[in-house]
Amino acid sequence: MIIPDSAKRILDSQALAHLVTLNSDGSSQVTCAWAGVEANEIVFATLFDQRKLRNMRRDPRVTLSFETATVNEMGLTEYLVIKGRARVTEGGAPELLQELARTYLGPEVTFPPMPDPPPGFVTRIEVERLGGLGPWTSGH
Amino acid sequence: MIIPDSAKRILDSQALAHLVTLNSDGSSQVTCAWAGVEANEIVFATLFDQRKLRNMRRDPRVTLSFETATVNEMGLTEYLVIKGRARVTEGGAPELLQELARTYLGPEVTFPPMPDPPPGFVTRIEVERLGGLGPWTSGH
Repeated sequence: MIIPDSAKRILDSQALAHLVTLNSDGSSQVTCAWAGVEANEIVFATLFDQRKLRNMRRDPRVTLSFETATVNEMGLTEYLVIKGRARVTEGGAPELLQELARTYLGPEVTFPPMPDPPPGFVTRIEVERLGGLGPWTSGH
Repeated sequence: MIIPDSAKRILDSQALAHLVTLNSDGSSQVTCAWAGVEANEIVFATLFDQRKLRNMRRDPRVTLSFETATVNEMGLTEYLVIKGRARVTEGGAPELLQELARTYLGPEVTFPPMPDPPPGFVTRIEVERLGGLGPWTSGH
């Protein structure tokens, strides 16, 4: 699906992605990560081959959740939930981390803070459904 | 396991719980909720019988994640991940929501904002393992 502008604003912000992948025993695994949008997909980068990458190669079904800075009239914080399918690609992690660091840390930051970082992995997530609490849900 | 003080401080704060349950097709479902600690278990309340409750009755394995207000020396936001087992109990939701509302909304708030709320459900989560990024992880 096309990511609506209301959700894209959250994805372009400093909001952290809570990324859920599925372990081999069917239980869930969560890590928080920087995320952005490229070509209507959610992207994030990892320098090393972590468990979440192995999980997504085995089962590409992921869910991401993001808190927003908006509080509704009942006092509840709006949040964005995204269901999607992930594919892990090799290389490009330092460049994407540098780009995301401008959003998450500041425009002048150099990241990752090491010489010669490994090429790492970029994960791309095709968005299938939106949920949570906010203008991107149908009942809002 | 006994919840360590470093994690209990997060659970007692205004940090929102990102609660992951498992759907019948094995995919993950995420909702954000208010959470607290009672008798070394994580507790939260729901007025109505939602999908997450049906999910936890079928498969009690849950993961919760919480952002903190602490940023480490690399600029990364610390976050708490909890793996546990949930049990859904009947009744007590309005009382627990009122208690949690004092933390999440303010000491003077009346919540839920309706006359005669239904008894609802209280979910109790036994903590099995901590993860994420913060003083509650072994590598920290």
